[in-house]
Amino acid sequence: MIQYYHFSEPFHTESGAVVPELTIAYHTFGQLNEAKDNVVWVCHALTANSDVADWWPGTVESGKFLDPQRWYVVCANIPGSCYGSTGPLSINPATAQPYYGDFPALTMRDIARVLHQFADGIGVGRINTLVGSSVGGFQALEWAAAHPARFDRLVLIATAPLATPWAIALDETQRMAIRADQSWGEPREDAAAAGLAAARAIGLLSYRGGPAYNRTQQDPPAVEPIPTHRACSYQQHQGLKLVRRFNAYSYMSILNAFDTHDIGRDRGGIATALASIPAKSVVIGITTDLIFPPSAMRALADALPCAQYVEIDSDMGHDGFLVENDKLNSILIPFMNSPL
Amino acid sequence: MIQYYHFSEPFHTESGAVVPELTIAYHTFGQLNEAKDNVVWVCHALTANSDVADWWPGTVESGKFLDPQRWYVVCANIPGSCYGSTGPLSINPATAQPYYGDFPALTMRDIARVLHQFADGIGVGRINTLVGSSVGGFQALEWAAAHPARFDRLVLIATAPLATPWAIALDETQRMAIRADQSWGEPREDAAAAGLAAARAIGLLSYRGGPAYNRTQQDPPAVEPIPTHRACSYQQHQGLKLVRRFNAYSYMSILNAFDTHDIGRDRGGIATALASIPAKSVVIGITTDLIFPPSAMRALADALPCAQYVEIDSDMGHDGFLVENDKLNSILIPFMNSPL
Repeated sequence: MIQYYHFSEPFHTESGAVVPELTIAYHTFGQLNEAKDNVVWVCHALTANSDVADWWPGTVESGKFLDPQRWYVVCANIPGSCYGSTGPLSINPATAQPYYGDFPALTMRDIARVLHQFADGIGVGRINTLVGSSVGGFQALEWAAAHPARFDRLVLIATAPLATPWAIALDETQRMAIRADQSWGEPREDAAAAGLAAARAIGLLSYRGGPAYNRTQQDPPAVEPIPTHRACSYQQHQGLKLVRRFNAYSYMSILNAFDTHDIGRDRGGIATALASIPAKSVVIGITTDLIFPPSAMRALADALPCAQYVEIDSDMGHDGFLVENDKLNSILIPFMNSPL
Repeated sequence: MIQYYHFSEPFHTESGAVVPELTIAYHTFGQLNEAKDNVVWVCHALTANSDVADWWPGTVESGKFLDPQRWYVVCANIPGSCYGSTGPLSINPATAQPYYGDFPALTMRDIARVLHQFADGIGVGRINTLVGSSVGGFQALEWAAAHPARFDRLVLIATAPLATPWAIALDETQRMAIRADQSWGEPREDAAAAGLAAARAIGLLSYRGGPAYNRTQQDPPAVEPIPTHRACSYQQHQGLKLVRRFNAYSYMSILNAFDTHDIGRDRGGIATALASIPAKSVVIGITTDLIFPPSAMRALADALPCAQYVEIDSDMGHDGFLVENDKLNSILIPFMNSPL
């Protein structure tokens, strides 16, 4: 069940803007035990929400790594998003109208600070296991670098300590598609809907990669000189699916935050920042991930003081983190049961 | 120097449309010898033109594989493009206005047939070596499958006998970005300029891939919470660069032709079509090519009756075919000197 937490004070961003009223939507699964040592915190990726059981099937179940009989699982919708937390479609108290393009720019560090203050606010202290995949891992790493003593364990799946140039190029290309839609900037929820659909289609190309895409979207033998292609309807379908549940303003807000991700900033560089994180960690790479390739995931594990690297063999590319749940469970259940 | 050839008859496309007046712009380098056995024909890729010496540096030079002292090198601008051959910006005789979106849809087989008839028209008979990279390779394979006896040698670089689902998805995503620009369809050369820029940026992500992109576009250490990124200005720059020299109508025309590519259609499938090509062939893959990965290039070589496979080790991805000229020369000079 979705719950809401209202910040009692305005939130000041790193770059000097103010979010006067901040609400965080969240889900919890299971119960906080008496020792308060069974908290598992999940940070969600780009367009997901706080309902982990919904977007990460086969994880929040009895006998799975987010077993609610054992763990108190918490997930918050990130600010800037549109699943209940304050974002561009929220009412700006200064104008009594939605923010739209005027929503303050958030850094990944801002988002992690929101999570930290929100956790304090709902009475969560020490966190047994902090889990982040993709942009969720950006938040997890940023939060762990800012408050290393808060976390016993860290699970990092298909993620990075820094937004790489190619990942930023992917985001910029998506922004170019959104801005190419002349309705971008209009004060309505569905501004730049066609641009957002194209942006999502761009993302998908990078999430899936060629091998799995070619396996799943193969056409029957062509008869006509100009045949229709499954790949075309699939890209359009995926674009429209996002348009129906998201909006271009929130998408831009999160893409922009993505690009600011750099846990080394003001901390003497990435190696120093990573070396300061004592949590027992597991870093999981996916063999065919184009955005966070295995070599980079291995380097991340090497730079953390107490981390093991595990690779999932999958042709599903970056999307693997959402679909290879059996493999994730077989890695994470023993990891979360292991002594500290 | 650019030259023009005018078809004496209207061109009938596979799907039943008619191009009433067809002009082909072309370049030649060197001289046709008396035996007429020194023709090297280059098929160009997506947005290139007939001036091979311009877009493929380090090839049309003395001592290189397209040495004009030895070979008579021919390259034609493909129909649908905008470098002198008839395309969407050409005048439609029926309306005395440019075609724009009304330019007849061409298949890759149509384009190969145009090349074949054009070669006849300029007095080229037997072709010693047919060279195609990327979409140029699509044309080369289609032409060789239609007229296998015309070619002694075939050079196929970073290409395929069929547009794969992921490659088609890449094209469809670019079309989505162009169509998201509401000026798409307006009767002017610069319609959907912003969409075209975004489309080019999408292409670039796939041409270069992560490793080389990350190596060449790295940012200095961030100081500001919201820094600027080289990757953003690079994507925008590349998009604008194409907008200055191309147009969205031609781009769409060629993307659409790309997706029709299937040398197996009406020929009993790809394996049968490839088996019918007797030319002595070399198939060249690039280790990091995301669109035409080495495994697919090797399979192409295996399916040709008389082909060797050679792999270029490069982190430049698909773009490698344009920049790894030293490696190409060292493969192709001996290949083109070898006995048949």
